Amino acid sequence: MLEALLDAHRPHWARLRQYVPILQWLPAYKRQYLLGDFIAGMALGVMAVPQSMAYALLANLPPQVGLYATLVPLVVYAIFGTSRVLSIGPVALVSLLTGTMIAQLATPQSPEAVQLALLAAFIVGAVQIVLGLLRMGFVVNFLSHPVLSGFTNAAAIVIALSQVKNLLGIKFPGSASLIADLRHAIALLPEANMASVVMGVVAIIIIVFFHRRLGRLLMRLGLSEFVAAQVARSGGLVVVVLGTLITWLFRLDQTAQLRTVGHVPVGLPPITLPALDLSNAGAMAPALAMLVVIGYVESVSIAKSFASRRREKVDADQELIALGAADIAASFTGGSPVSGSFSRSAVNFASGAATQLSSVFAALVIALTLLFLTPLFYFLPETILAATIVAAVLHLPDLETVRQAWRYSKADWLTLVVTLFGVLFIGVEAGLLIGVVSSLAVHLWVTSRPHVTIIGRVEDTETYKSVKRYKVKTCPHVTALRIDESLYFATAKVLEDTLIGVAVDNPKLKYVVLDCSAVNRIDLSALTTLETVDNELRAMGVTLVLSAVKGPIHDSLLKAGFVSRFGQDRIYLSTHEAMKALGCA
Amino acid sequence: MLEALLDAHRPHWARLRQYVPILQWLPAYKRQYLLGDFIAGMALGVMAVPQSMAYALLANLPPQVGLYATLVPLVVYAIFGTSRVLSIGPVALVSLLTGTMIAQLATPQSPEAVQLALLAAFIVGAVQIVLGLLRMGFVVNFLSHPVLSGFTNAAAIVIALSQVKNLLGIKFPGSASLIADLRHAIALLPEANMASVVMGVVAIIIIVFFHRRLGRLLMRLGLSEFVAAQVARSGGLVVVVLGTLITWLFRLDQTAQLRTVGHVPVGLPPITLPALDLSNAGAMAPALAMLVVIGYVESVSIAKSFASRRREKVDADQELIALGAADIAASFTGGSPVSGSFSRSAVNFASGAATQLSSVFAALVIALTLLFLTPLFYFLPETILAATIVAAVLHLPDLETVRQAWRYSKADWLTLVVTLFGVLFIGVEAGLLIGVVSSLAVHLWVTSRPHVTIIGRVEDTETYKSVKRYKVKTCPHVTALRIDESLYFATAKVLEDTLIGVAVDNPKLKYVVLDCSAVNRIDLSALTTLETVDNELRAMGVTLVLSAVKGPIHDSLLKAGFVSRFGQDRIYLSTHEAMKALGCA
Repeated sequence: MLEALLDAHRPHWARLRQYVPILQWLPAYKRQYLLGDFIAGMALGVMAVPQSMAYALLANLPPQVGLYATLVPLVVYAIFGTSRVLSIGPVALVSLLTGTMIAQLATPQSPEAVQLALLAAFIVGAVQIVLGLLRMGFVVNFLSHPVLSGFTNAAAIVIALSQVKNLLGIKFPGSASLIADLRHAIALLPEANMASVVMGVVAIIIIVFFHRRLGRLLMRLGLSEFVAAQVARSGGLVVVVLGTLITWLFRLDQTAQLRTVGHVPVGLPPITLPALDLSNAGAMAPALAMLVVIGYVESVSIAKSFASRRREKVDADQELIALGAADIAASFTGGSPVSGSFSRSAVNFASGAATQLSSVFAALVIALTLLFLTPLFYFLPETILAATIVAAVLHLPDLETVRQAWRYSKADWLTLVVTLFGVLFIGVEAGLLIGVVSSLAVHLWVTSRPHVTIIGRVEDTETYKSVKRYKVKTCPHVTALRIDESLYFATAKVLEDTLIGVAVDNPKLKYVVLDCSAVNRIDLSALTTLETVDNELRAMGVTLVLSAVKGPIHDSLLKAGFVSRFGQDRIYLSTHEAMKALGCA
Repeated sequence: MLEALLDAHRPHWARLRQYVPILQWLPAYKRQYLLGDFIAGMALGVMAVPQSMAYALLANLPPQVGLYATLVPLVVYAIFGTSRVLSIGPVALVSLLTGTMIAQLATPQSPEAVQLALLAAFIVGAVQIVLGLLRMGFVVNFLSHPVLSGFTNAAAIVIALSQVKNLLGIKFPGSASLIADLRHAIALLPEANMASVVMGVVAIIIIVFFHRRLGRLLMRLGLSEFVAAQVARSGGLVVVVLGTLITWLFRLDQTAQLRTVGHVPVGLPPITLPALDLSNAGAMAPALAMLVVIGYVESVSIAKSFASRRREKVDADQELIALGAADIAASFTGGSPVSGSFSRSAVNFASGAATQLSSVFAALVIALTLLFLTPLFYFLPETILAATIVAAVLHLPDLETVRQAWRYSKADWLTLVVTLFGVLFIGVEAGLLIGVVSSLAVHLWVTSRPHVTIIGRVEDTETYKSVKRYKVKTCPHVTALRIDESLYFATAKVLEDTLIGVAVDNPKLKYVVLDCSAVNRIDLSALTTLETVDNELRAMGVTLVLSAVKGPIHDSLLKAGFVSRFGQDRIYLSTHEAMKALGCA
């Protein structure tokens, strides 16, 4: 009975399972997953508490907003996400973008700033869900590797420099200009708070030491790899606890004027309604667009990279929907825009998470913190949070890609550098846009000047290769040419010049074979050119022959009537067939 | 002695001859060319007089400016041009662009309007020369066929409608908006001058009759083809002479208030210095950019099309220099920006021009006209010039391309239509820009979703074709894939998804052969993806193999260290070699 009912609704059920992946993995949950998920969830939660407060600081928001943006979104992603280990919440790049947007429109950490963050999370989430339902995940393909690398490198610098004022314990209204902020900070250097500087620098050193050295040290002292790794990851927690304790013990907030987090409200996230006040829509638009794209690219790249390590698959379009749902959840529970966190996903993965149940456990840790521990944050120094951020972005710079780009392709390197300097000196959004436009321009530039070569037969094979690189057989009355690019408007002239040039230069020429194995598209401009050239060649007594035309292109040529005008007998399956027919093989 | 001197300077001499082509053809001039050049020059000159005055009207300039823009530029192009028959001067599209620009910045036909035209010709010429010296002729390749067709069709409509007011004999200040001008004209319809309307319509009918019917009629009456053709082309001259005579005889300018050209100054072009007043530079910039590009594209396309009919060659970069020189010559002799005229070049060609000496003869006709005939133009009705323009643009619409685009590619058709409506309803410059951006977007969109197919061996050959289209041989443990696009940032994800997908779907799979015959570029993003995918496949127990990697790409892969990391033994010359080595051929 139930079976029959299920059968009748199977298409709907399958569809529902596609859009709500928890319906796939939760019914198949195995008991042996539980310990790993629990340990990973604890590790993730403990790590997320200071990180999310620190990123709220970076986003020019009160610390609790970071905790709110972690709690419910973690659970919502567990329901809709296709990655088993991705951990969602406030992250460096997204917080930087949110913070830059807020700095332009409201007083940092004010109620208006929070309203802007809620609105941003709502709009970004809604756009991501729509893009996901339209299966538009592919648009991020246009963000090339060099652009992302240039952006990430520049963002690391921007983020680190943005924390200088918190480390120095000085305060001034932030602006959208990195340079102006830096100048401001330098001018206020004499007013720096020594306690803040010392505590911040020591905290950075402790976190880095825990992360880079402590694990190996403990293993050498006989601890198991698992325990050693867990301890090594707790640097953030340790400095938070130590910093808070010391500040409380010596009342550094009063004796040394050390800035602390102060009052953080007790209790679960409030239910918030983002005010759909679109008066700032124009000013917010570029930042929102970047939050949609960068948030998604970061999230899906991290998800894919961890999935492949376990031979699992991630659905790029469903990831858009899941991230969008998490963003909307954030906007309704007092949170700012979210994305996937690399460092927290890595901890989750390494601690043995088998499913997204670990995220649910982590959410529990955050909930307990909000219910019982927030009064302790009163003495948590801001410099400690700044140190957490700086230590986190020390991993961001990706110099290997810069080096690789320089070696492999100067054009790719230039795109990277243009994006990097654009983000640093013009602005986060403008820099990224400049990068995307440059990478498209480079691609068009390169494809508009294709490699063209005369080819000949490699002895005893049916393979035809460039006469410049291989010892090949050719004939005086036939020239076979290969053009290494699609025939489209930007390459039409090259096609024309090459074919006519070959005919003009060789008076004995009877046939030109155009090897189309590298031609992936023929647009109308190129088709028109091809017909013109064919007529011009015929006038010179030279016959044009096509070979290795791909199926889909042949179909379009047929439909357009080109094949019947040109003649099917002048189109060969392969260059070898053509050369045989023309008496040159 | 002279020989030795020449030898010593041969490289400079060769260079000079390249930049000043008259040094090539004039020393080699043959006596038998002279009669053809002379007749063609006369035909060209007679045709150019009314046309150039009419186009001055279209450009919102006094009629003599058109004559000035023809005289010296014809001679300058004869010196620097590489086409033997191209005829330079004011033409429809360039005059439309100039006129639109002038309408926004000055009173039509005023001295300020002339100053703007001189400045435009100077800047456009200078930019063209610089582009030519930098060998940047290729930039025009980015104007696709559909964009040009959409632009030309829309321009024909804009030009024809712009002459409605002149045909009606009414006058109002022109604006940049086609719609506003039309509404204005309709509102003023009751004030239309009947003499103007009748004379204009009759003139259009006469020109079209001469052009389309008279030639054949005369040949049937026994005239030689050459004479018949010459008479058929004289429609423009006939209506000018008849219109002027009738107006003078009946003093229609007074009895019927018919608007005439009026006073045209006697004498050769003045030497003018374009005032480098850059206060309007911002407003002029888009129009100037279009004049540079459209003027050149039109000119070089016409030059190429006539050259190929005689198996001559045109140097695209030198053409930029020659056109630029003609533009600068125009700016110093009272003229507006110029381009190659299709109709006048066709007359030149058909009348037997062998060299650019015909242009020099035509310039003589213009000079004699300016010296002796301008008083006669006093009674030349403006409606006759308007009729000349309308009759000329009747040839412009190119519906065949619209039809062809619809049949061949909806994307190309859409680009054409977007450009057409953009030019008509948004503006000449904005429309063209929208068209160019659309065609680039379409190209990127299409190339970002490449065709990927599994290929197999066509029986008894070494050719590998799609399993979907051909009966081919495949093996269970090897899958050969061909991706029909360059591997770059926009296709990197497709590459990853396809390769991983094939491996996940076939548990028995041991090898994946990636046929790179259609891969014309591998950028850094794709290279990184390729290495990631290779690692992921290895983890699944599948070995990735590359085949038919093109020489230039192999070189870059080698330089970047990819080949040594990946292994040269996994890169095969052809798919057949790879399949043989893997025991599947």
